[in-house]
Amino acid sequence: MRNVQVELAHAPYDIRIGRNLLDDVAAIVAQLPQKRVAIVSNETVAPLYLPQLQAALEAADVQVHTVVLPDGERFKNWETLNLIFDGLLTARCERKTTLIALGGGVIGDMTGFAAAVYQRGVPFIQIPTTLLAQVDSSVGGKTAINHPLGKNMIGAFYQPRLVLADLATLDTLPAREFSAGMAEVIKYGLIDDLAFFEWLEANIDAVMARDVDALEYLIERCCQNKARVVAADEHEHGQRALLNLGHTFGHAIEAGLGYGVWLHGEAVAAGMVLAALASHALGQISDDDLARIRALLEKAGLPVVSPALGEERYLELMSQDKKVDAGKIKFILLEKLGQSYIGELKTETIKQALAAGCAA
Amino acid sequence: MRNVQVELAHAPYDIRIGRNLLDDVAAIVAQLPQKRVAIVSNETVAPLYLPQLQAALEAADVQVHTVVLPDGERFKNWETLNLIFDGLLTARCERKTTLIALGGGVIGDMTGFAAAVYQRGVPFIQIPTTLLAQVDSSVGGKTAINHPLGKNMIGAFYQPRLVLADLATLDTLPAREFSAGMAEVIKYGLIDDLAFFEWLEANIDAVMARDVDALEYLIERCCQNKARVVAADEHEHGQRALLNLGHTFGHAIEAGLGYGVWLHGEAVAAGMVLAALASHALGQISDDDLARIRALLEKAGLPVVSPALGEERYLELMSQDKKVDAGKIKFILLEKLGQSYIGELKTETIKQALAAGCAA
Ligand SMILES: NC(=O)c1ccc[n+]([C@@H]2O[C@H](COP(=O)([O-])OP(=O)(O)OC[C@H]3O[C@@H](n4cnc5c(N)ncnc54)[C@H](O)[C@@H]3O)[C@@H](O)[C@H]2O)c1
Ligand SMILES: NC(=O)c1ccc[n+]([C@@H]2O[C@H](COP(=O)([O-])OP(=O)(O)OC[C@H]3O[C@@H](n4cnc5c(N)ncnc54)[C@H](O)[C@@H]3O)[C@@H](O)[C@H]2O)c1
Ligand SMILES: [Zn+2]
Ligand SMILES: [Zn+2]
Repeated sequence: MRNVQVELAHAPYDIRIGRNLLDDVAAIVAQLPQKRVAIVSNETVAPLYLPQLQAALEAADVQVHTVVLPDGERFKNWETLNLIFDGLLTARCERKTTLIALGGGVIGDMTGFAAAVYQRGVPFIQIPTTLLAQVDSSVGGKTAINHPLGKNMIGAFYQPRLVLADLATLDTLPAREFSAGMAEVIKYGLIDDLAFFEWLEANIDAVMARDVDALEYLIERCCQNKARVVAADEHEHGQRALLNLGHTFGHAIEAGLGYGVWLHGEAVAAGMVLAALASHALGQISDDDLARIRALLEKAGLPVVSPALGEERYLELMSQDKKVDAGKIKFILLEKLGQSYIGELKTETIKQALAAGCAA
Repeated sequence: MRNVQVELAHAPYDIRIGRNLLDDVAAIVAQLPQKRVAIVSNETVAPLYLPQLQAALEAADVQVHTVVLPDGERFKNWETLNLIFDGLLTARCERKTTLIALGGGVIGDMTGFAAAVYQRGVPFIQIPTTLLAQVDSSVGGKTAINHPLGKNMIGAFYQPRLVLADLATLDTLPAREFSAGMAEVIKYGLIDDLAFFEWLEANIDAVMARDVDALEYLIERCCQNKARVVAADEHEHGQRALLNLGHTFGHAIEAGLGYGVWLHGEAVAAGMVLAALASHALGQISDDDLARIRALLEKAGLPVVSPALGEERYLELMSQDKKVDAGKIKFILLEKLGQSYIGELKTETIKQALAAGCAA
C-alpha cells in the first residue's frame, strides 16, 4: 500500500494505492460523519465490485444505498445526474450522507458533481476503477457533466475526502481503456517529469502487461505529480492548466467526431502529438523528440494521427474550449521534452500542426 | 446610499442600498474581471429594468448578453437553468464573464447556481428587485434550484461579488409580493433583534406605505443582521440555521399545497406562527407574545393560520427537509420574543402546534 497526500490547506486528503483495498473499509469508515453512504456505480462496474464493497461496508455497520447508472460518456449529462438525485431523495439521504463513486472517470465526475450540489454539498469519496481515473480524474476535485454545447461545461471544484485506488479492479479493465489511461500517464512525463518519461520508455512492456509493481509505482508517481500541481493551484488560475496538455486539441477531436467515438485518452494522445507538432513548428521540439513521443504513445496502444475534421472545424471547436480568455485560446506547449508552458498560437501555427498531425 | 459589508475572509463583498442605483454602474464595473456580462432576468422584470441597466453598462463599454427566463417558482428547475447555460454557451461566455441576476429570489437563486457551476464557477453579481430578495435571498450565497422531490435540493454556496439593492425597483412590486418579503423582515426581529421587532411594530404603517426612509433603514438593518450571521457561519454548520425560523413548517406548507399556491414568504409567516406556538407549548412564549407576533404579521398583510394539510402529511413533508440530521428534524424555536435557538420537538409538541395553528 502506498499513500499520497494532497496538501490542500482547507481539506487535505489521502490517496491510497494498492491491491485489494475494497475489502479493507476501515479507511472509508474513518471518513464518514454518519454511518450512511450512497454508492454510485454503473451497469458494467457494479456487478464486478459493488457486492464486495457493499458487504464490507455493511459488515462495518454502515447503511448502504446504491445507485446504478447506465454506462457511457453519452450518459454524462443532466438526465443521468438526476437519477442520482432521485435515488438520494427517495432514500432521504441527508447532508451528512457520504457519496462514494465506484467506477471510471465518468462515474467519478458525475458523482463528485452530485456531491457538490446535493443539498449544497455532502461528503464525497472516490474509488476509481479505470487507469485514467486512478492517475488523473479522481484526484484534484474537478467534477462535471457535459452540455450538448460542450464537454464538462457544468461542474464544480469539489474535493473528495479520500481516494482509494485499488489495483485489483484494473484486472478487468479492457485493453483499449487501459491504453486510454496511459495517455494521461505519458502526459505527466511530457509536462514536467522527463525522468518519468524515460522510466516509461524503459518499462512500457511491463506496464502494458500490467505488472503489479510497475503499476503501483506508475500510479503513485502520477498521483504525486497531480497532487503537487493541484495543491499549488486548486482552481486552475495558473500552473494547473499544464495538466491540459493535449486537451484543447483533444476536446476538439472528441466533439468533432461525436463524444464516445474516440475515448478521451485516445483524443488526448493525438492531441498531445498536435501540441508537440505546434511546439516543433516553433522550433522547441526536435524531430527526435517527436519520434520518441509518437513511439511511446504507439507502444501504449494509442493513436498518434488526428482525424481529418478540417482545419476550420478544429478552429471553431477549439474557440469554444473553457481555456479561452478574452477570445484567445490558451494552449499547453512544450518548451522541450519534459517541460511545458501555457502559451498562445498563431492561427498559422495551429494550421501547420493540423496539416502535419491529421489524417489525409 | 447605505453600504453593508459582508465580512467573509476569503471574499468580502458590499451590499449597496439606495434609490436609482441601476443608473450608476461604476460599482458594477469595478468588479468585472472582463468587460463582459450576461444579465439574467425574467419576463416580468426585464421589460421594467433591463433596458436601463443594459444601456448604462453599454455606455460604460461593457459587452452585455441577456437571458430572459419565464417567470415563476415553478420554473426554478433544471430545464430553466439550462436556458441560462444555452445562452452562455451560444454567446461563448468565458470563465471571466460575470453573471448578473436582475430579479427576485427565483432569478437570484438560479443565476447564482448557474454562476457556481458554469465552467466550474464564474463571477456573480446580485441585483435583487423584490423586498424578499433585497433583505434575504441575495445576501449570503445560498443558491439553488428545486427538484420534483424537494425545494432547493440542488444548489451551492456561492458568494456574489456585489449586491445592489435599488429601492426604486420596489415601486413596481405587487402588494402581495411586498408582504411576502415582510415575513423575512419580521423574522430578523424574532430571531435575535427585539429592538427591530419593536421598531417594526411602531413603523409598520410607514413601511407598508413604502416610505423611502423607512424602507432604506429596514433593508439596511436586515442586511446587517444577515451579513453578521453569514460571516460567522457561511456554510450553515451552526448559528446560520436560525435564519430558518418558520421555514421547516413553511417548506411543508409550500410543498403540501403545491409550490406557488402560497408565496414563500406567506408560508414562512404561517410557519413562524407554528414555531411560536410550539415554543408556547414549551412554556417559552406568552399569550401576549403570540398576539404581538400575529398582529405584526397581519398588519404586514400576511397569513397567520396554516392550511389544513393534516398532521401526518406535515410530519412526512418535514422529515424530507434539508435540516434533518440522523433522522431527527431540527426546528428553530423561540426562547422568548427576539431570541431563538436550534432545537428538536417531540412529535406530540409538533401536533399541538399544528392543532392550534392550522385552519379547521
Ligand atoms: N475530473 C478530472 O479531472 C478528469 C480528468 C480526466 C478525465 N476526466 C473525465 O473522465 C472521463 C473518462 O474516464 P474513464 O476513461 O475512466 O471512462 P469511463 O468512466 O467511461 O470508463 C471506461 C469504461 O470502462 C468501464 N470500467 C470502469 N472500470 C472498470 C473495471 N474495473 N473493469 C471493467 N470495466 C471497467 C466503464 O464502465 C466504461 O465502460 C471523461 O468523462 C473525462 O471527461 C475527468
Ligand atoms: N438564497 C436564499 O438564501 C433564499 C432566501 C429566501 C428565499 N429564497 C428563494 O427566493 C425565492 C422567492 O423570491 P421572491 O419572493 O423574490 O420571488 P420571485 O423571484 O418569484 O419574485 C416574485 C414576483 O415578483 C416579480 N418581480 C420581481 N421584481 C419585481 C419588481 N421590481 N416589480 C414587479 N414585479 C417584480 C417576479 O417576476 C415574480 O413574479 C424562492 O425561490 C426562495 O426559495 C432564497
Ligand atoms: Zn484528460
Ligand atoms: Zn425564506
